[in-house]
Amino acid sequence: MRILSSELKDHVGETVHLEGWLHKKRLLGGLTFINLRDRRGIIQAVIDDKNEVDKLKGMQIGTVMIIDGKVVDEPRAPGGAELHEVKLEIMVPVEFEPPIEVDKPLSHKPENLDTLFEHRAIGLRNLDETKIFLIRSNLLRLIRQFLYEHDFVEIQTPKLVANAAEGGAEVFKLDYFGKPASLAQSPQLYKQVMVGVFERVFEIGPAFRAEPSATTRHVSEVTMLDIEMAFIQSHEDVLNMVQDLLYFTVTNIWEQYGNELKQLRAPEPILTPTFPRYSMRQIHELYQEANKTDMSGEIDLTPDEERWICDYAKEHDGSEAVFATDLPKSKMKFYHMSKDAEAALSADLLFRGLELATVPQREHRYDKLVEQMKTAGLNPDDESYRFYLQAFKHGLPPHGGCGFGIDRLVEKTLGLGNIKEAILFPRDINRITP
Amino acid sequence: MRILSSELKDHVGETVHLEGWLHKKRLLGGLTFINLRDRRGIIQAVIDDKNEVDKLKGMQIGTVMIIDGKVVDEPRAPGGAELHEVKLEIMVPVEFEPPIEVDKPLSHKPENLDTLFEHRAIGLRNLDETKIFLIRSNLLRLIRQFLYEHDFVEIQTPKLVANAAEGGAEVFKLDYFGKPASLAQSPQLYKQVMVGVFERVFEIGPAFRAEPSATTRHVSEVTMLDIEMAFIQSHEDVLNMVQDLLYFTVTNIWEQYGNELKQLRAPEPILTPTFPRYSMRQIHELYQEANKTDMSGEIDLTPDEERWICDYAKEHDGSEAVFATDLPKSKMKFYHMSKDAEAALSADLLFRGLELATVPQREHRYDKLVEQMKTAGLNPDDESYRFYLQAFKHGLPPHGGCGFGIDRLVEKTLGLGNIKEAILFPRDINRITP
Repeated sequence: MRILSSELKDHVGETVHLEGWLHKKRLLGGLTFINLRDRRGIIQAVIDDKNEVDKLKGMQIGTVMIIDGKVVDEPRAPGGAELHEVKLEIMVPVEFEPPIEVDKPLSHKPENLDTLFEHRAIGLRNLDETKIFLIRSNLLRLIRQFLYEHDFVEIQTPKLVANAAEGGAEVFKLDYFGKPASLAQSPQLYKQVMVGVFERVFEIGPAFRAEPSATTRHVSEVTMLDIEMAFIQSHEDVLNMVQDLLYFTVTNIWEQYGNELKQLRAPEPILTPTFPRYSMRQIHELYQEANKTDMSGEIDLTPDEERWICDYAKEHDGSEAVFATDLPKSKMKFYHMSKDAEAALSADLLFRGLELATVPQREHRYDKLVEQMKTAGLNPDDESYRFYLQAFKHGLPPHGGCGFGIDRLVEKTLGLGNIKEAILFPRDINRITP
Repeated sequence: MRILSSELKDHVGETVHLEGWLHKKRLLGGLTFINLRDRRGIIQAVIDDKNEVDKLKGMQIGTVMIIDGKVVDEPRAPGGAELHEVKLEIMVPVEFEPPIEVDKPLSHKPENLDTLFEHRAIGLRNLDETKIFLIRSNLLRLIRQFLYEHDFVEIQTPKLVANAAEGGAEVFKLDYFGKPASLAQSPQLYKQVMVGVFERVFEIGPAFRAEPSATTRHVSEVTMLDIEMAFIQSHEDVLNMVQDLLYFTVTNIWEQYGNELKQLRAPEPILTPTFPRYSMRQIHELYQEANKTDMSGEIDLTPDEERWICDYAKEHDGSEAVFATDLPKSKMKFYHMSKDAEAALSADLLFRGLELATVPQREHRYDKLVEQMKTAGLNPDDESYRFYLQAFKHGLPPHGGCGFGIDRLVEKTLGLGNIKEAILFPRDINRITP
């Protein structure tokens, strides 16, 4: 009966059976020490029997093997115990050295990223890499837990669409049985339609952006959490829901995976249950005063202001998350609700200097929406908008929501330097493999 | 403070506040009866005050409104109570009649399906339609619950790939910043690589197949559950996991949503914890004997045999789910493991006459895999296979898994007649909108 590496300590004095990968091998004082990796981590085994040592001859890191041995207390070993009196059995021999080191702590220097991604299939076996994606999976599990508890229904909307132009990023085009089609850059129109059915919906899925930029922020395929909720009293209801979601998720990941996060040197979160809110104008003024820079010409927040206001809120309000409210009309999409002549009913959720989500109330009034589409240069009679406008024509209540970047959340939760480090197999202008 | 329709009965004697959509309106004995719909269902309100009745003048189904009223016991009303002494407030007036009826029980005649999809944004407000997608969302929730409990890690793999040719369906091609690319038809290669990291992984996401067929079974965008597990003792381990997953999911959806399933006239499941297993040869022989048809020329199962063996197993073994094992070599993909000269270590999971998943053990030995690729006419030196083969070269243990069609599971759980009825916004050769 196989036990897992994490269970070793519970079996001190017993003979146990483990299966996994050879992760490290070294000679020390005439003894052979090996680390065996399985899905829970690593254990250490000490081999002195020459017959057993011989079985390892020529076996490289990655060799799949069975180890039987006696568990002995050893505070210096991973997990506080190690294996003695070892019997080995090779299941899958590996004769090639790994193309990338897997037994060193992670250090993602920018110049190494390309090598990292070229050998991703092996590099992910590094225990720190594995932890990144364990955290990612559990952030998503916590997000779903929160949303189920708040009566949201998960939906799947099509990624193949006739027209992905909602006024956002560039789109990928393809031939769909002789007709032109695009890859969805978000489920925006579909999720709004769906609040007419379930009131509260969410989707977690891929979104595609033909971003022709090569930066630490740009990828062409992202994982988005899309949320939409109806029967809101005001924009504030949406901000609170998104705030509570982020607070719940980040707080709980630290409660449940604090050890792993510390091992990855993730910065401990500084958050208050209520996130501070500053209007765009306030941020410009505060920044101008603190930095002695003239911001009067700026409409939108500059990247430097995004970082600065997060630092400011951290110090001033004890929160690394902050809402920048009253976003300018210039940033407003046709489906956002207008607040007044200058501002939209929309806010950016910033976390550790990066925008995680734009959180607007939607324009739910049919006539007003048609008008805003025209102002945005779109044709409301276009066949691809018919189903969308139909939902409004037949009654949609006040609603709002957001598209929340999961890759960005993982990046910022872990304190990574590049969004691509938070993605298993990232895609950018230069990369379509592996 | 808003209450939801499902909570009405708990407030008999009190004055309550509800918000929702006008779902039905009729005159009866000088009184106006309306149904109000919200995310939990409908309630009935009786209006006698002329001022209130006047507010409804010209208001069509879909009108968004607030109702305040006194809750009165009424066994004949939905939920066992209704509202009297009603005060109405119109939030969003609707002046157009709905293009499709939303207050009738569902009857999806084949000739109606196109109308249904044309007006999907409104048709989904039908309470029975809503239930279909509530069940779908909860089937996915239960699947995740089972897989988390069994130590699987959820992953997201890219849908934009250099080469989607794994020997399956036709692929959609697109231009990726000047390079040729495809849409992934499955996460096959990526999930196998990932068992080298997490041992047990799953993904739930879209898959794309350029199927040039217009049938009740074909769609070009599906939701797939992909599972992969390593360190198996034998193929049987994989069959058992998939069997336990289906048994858990179907059993629990009936425990938790039995009422909704009955209202949708979903057939009650007949399942045993262990699903019967019949080899291809046995099925041919049993079918031949029962139907007096010569099956000696058939290699693969015919669609009629798939239906027949499910009926047979239901009667004979008390199970509507059955494994057809020892699938023929002719059906074997390059990444499947061979059993002997005729058969692969692979089985089809059939449920109510339809294949939900093919469940093989994988070929995990590098040399053997390269050989099988060549036999399949693929070039192992192709750059797009490099990362995949790298994982094997550096050690992958015995593993297996499956791609499980979520849309098919929903269709068969509910007893629908067409896979498209199980998808919010289906895509086929003739349909890219809405």
